[in-house]
Amino acid sequence: MIPSIEDIKQAVQRVKPYVHNTPVMKSSTVNLRCDAKVFFKCENFQRMGAFKMRGATNAILQLTEEERSKGVVTHSSGNFAQALALASRLLDTKAYIVMPDSAPDIKAEAVKDYGAEVILCAPNLASREKTSEEIQQKTGATFIHPSNDMQVIIGQGTAAWELIKEVKDLDVILTPVGGGGLIAGTAIAAHYLLPNTQIIGGEPFGADDAYWSLETGIIQPSINPVTIADGLKTQLGDQNFPIIQKHVSKIIRVEESEIIEAMRYIWERMKIIIEPSSAVAVAALFRNKDEFKNRNVGVIISGGNVDLRNLPF
Amino acid sequence: MIPSIEDIKQAVQRVKPYVHNTPVMKSSTVNLRCDAKVFFKCENFQRMGAFKMRGATNAILQLTEEERSKGVVTHSSGNFAQALALASRLLDTKAYIVMPDSAPDIKAEAVKDYGAEVILCAPNLASREKTSEEIQQKTGATFIHPSNDMQVIIGQGTAAWELIKEVKDLDVILTPVGGGGLIAGTAIAAHYLLPNTQIIGGEPFGADDAYWSLETGIIQPSINPVTIADGLKTQLGDQNFPIIQKHVSKIIRVEESEIIEAMRYIWERMKIIIEPSSAVAVAALFRNKDEFKNRNVGVIISGGNVDLRNLPF
Repeated sequence: MIPSIEDIKQAVQRVKPYVHNTPVMKSSTVNLRCDAKVFFKCENFQRMGAFKMRGATNAILQLTEEERSKGVVTHSSGNFAQALALASRLLDTKAYIVMPDSAPDIKAEAVKDYGAEVILCAPNLASREKTSEEIQQKTGATFIHPSNDMQVIIGQGTAAWELIKEVKDLDVILTPVGGGGLIAGTAIAAHYLLPNTQIIGGEPFGADDAYWSLETGIIQPSINPVTIADGLKTQLGDQNFPIIQKHVSKIIRVEESEIIEAMRYIWERMKIIIEPSSAVAVAALFRNKDEFKNRNVGVIISGGNVDLRNLPF
Repeated sequence: MIPSIEDIKQAVQRVKPYVHNTPVMKSSTVNLRCDAKVFFKCENFQRMGAFKMRGATNAILQLTEEERSKGVVTHSSGNFAQALALASRLLDTKAYIVMPDSAPDIKAEAVKDYGAEVILCAPNLASREKTSEEIQQKTGATFIHPSNDMQVIIGQGTAAWELIKEVKDLDVILTPVGGGGLIAGTAIAAHYLLPNTQIIGGEPFGADDAYWSLETGIIQPSINPVTIADGLKTQLGDQNFPIIQKHVSKIIRVEESEIIEAMRYIWERMKIIIEPSSAVAVAALFRNKDEFKNRNVGVIISGGNVDLRNLPF
């Protein structure tokens, strides 16, 4: 089932009081480099520093009052953990975050600071799922998947919705591809507002499961992904894959060195902090710049959460 | 002579086609930390990455056509060098930049990239001034001081003008203090638009010549300044000091550790890159936060040019 334009419109209104309508930035240096007009939707300026806030908020707001009274649970050590924690605090529900015990303490602390309960598990899929299920059974909390949940997908699409409403004329929108929630939501929003816009994903060669999923027509697992873009190590799911198959033109894969160069370039030229996962979309733009020549290109800058003590430059 | 409101108004119109009206950003985290409403005027997003573009542009635009045909000269290894180079390119004049031979190659390269001619000199005031004079005599170029030139000062004031026009109600405006051009220009703009607004400077303890200049009533030289805020090592001049004496409430001095903490805090929380000199104004806000409680505080983020290979964290 592909959501309707009403689903998206309502989500835009629903999340509005809780998320920022982030600024769209331009850079003459980037435009010169690509010979294109590039519009960056700066979700690094979103609350908790990433677009994930949108999907988490939308998903919680779609629960019944009874469901909300019992809380929500997810497994994530990344931005979705923080997003669900913050959204839960704002919406006065309880968040249980299942996190691998291998995750850095700082991530668990950030989530606890938002008032969520952190439950550690072994760093593998089986333990993660088992722990989540136990919590659901014990507390009655609703499980919300970080990327393969239709309300999360619709919520993520509100960023592209705002971008299109502001810029109006876009030939292409580029997003990074991790679990698929952002690109699927973006594709849906563009489908209704600008049906001729191409949706293109950026993915690291070291974590190119989405590329191969599109090539083979079957969701490929993400096996031992190796990339600095740690938000993109996850795989697609049955909710977002059909949308991606139908509405995403292609996926451009990029090298690690390209990700780092793009990240550094944006930091130095635009003076904004973008995380490696965001730099993947920028690197895709730079790598294939000839195909974007003279076009209006939107890029979703997905987030700005980096560990400043551990930079690649 | 203190410039009139007409001088500033005209400068705002004069520089408008050449400089960005930079965004004003807010941060709920900063507001919470200070229990105040803080408005950041983001000159780190200005062309070439700093407010200096404003003063350089205004100064060149005030020259006669004959003067412009002969070019402009300044001595600087910092942001004003790049600003004068870029403004000269945009305004079709020639820029001669006198730079100490101790400056990193990367700084000379950046200036050359904008089409300016770099002339190296020994790293001391006497050599710098002698070299500048020689160029003036040889080429007929007009000397433009980075901070002690009334047209530069007026140009820098256009940032505060835009900030006040946008936010309207400000109790205080904080700026870093180096050569004094930014704070003097800010003070003039505020004086005419919001006469009750306090203008406060931030200065490192390791380069507190402006603090002592105000204390003693005499411009104090900047002798062996030691600070990470390398844009603030210069001293006040006879053009800006009377303005500062009359219209600046005080200068708050900050420790190096406070500068680094403020810089890191803004990078992590606001996802924008600010240079150490800008962090000095933020550090002053944090250090004296009790005095800013419940007030509307403007902070001029002066620039965002940092060497990413050489960060203090």
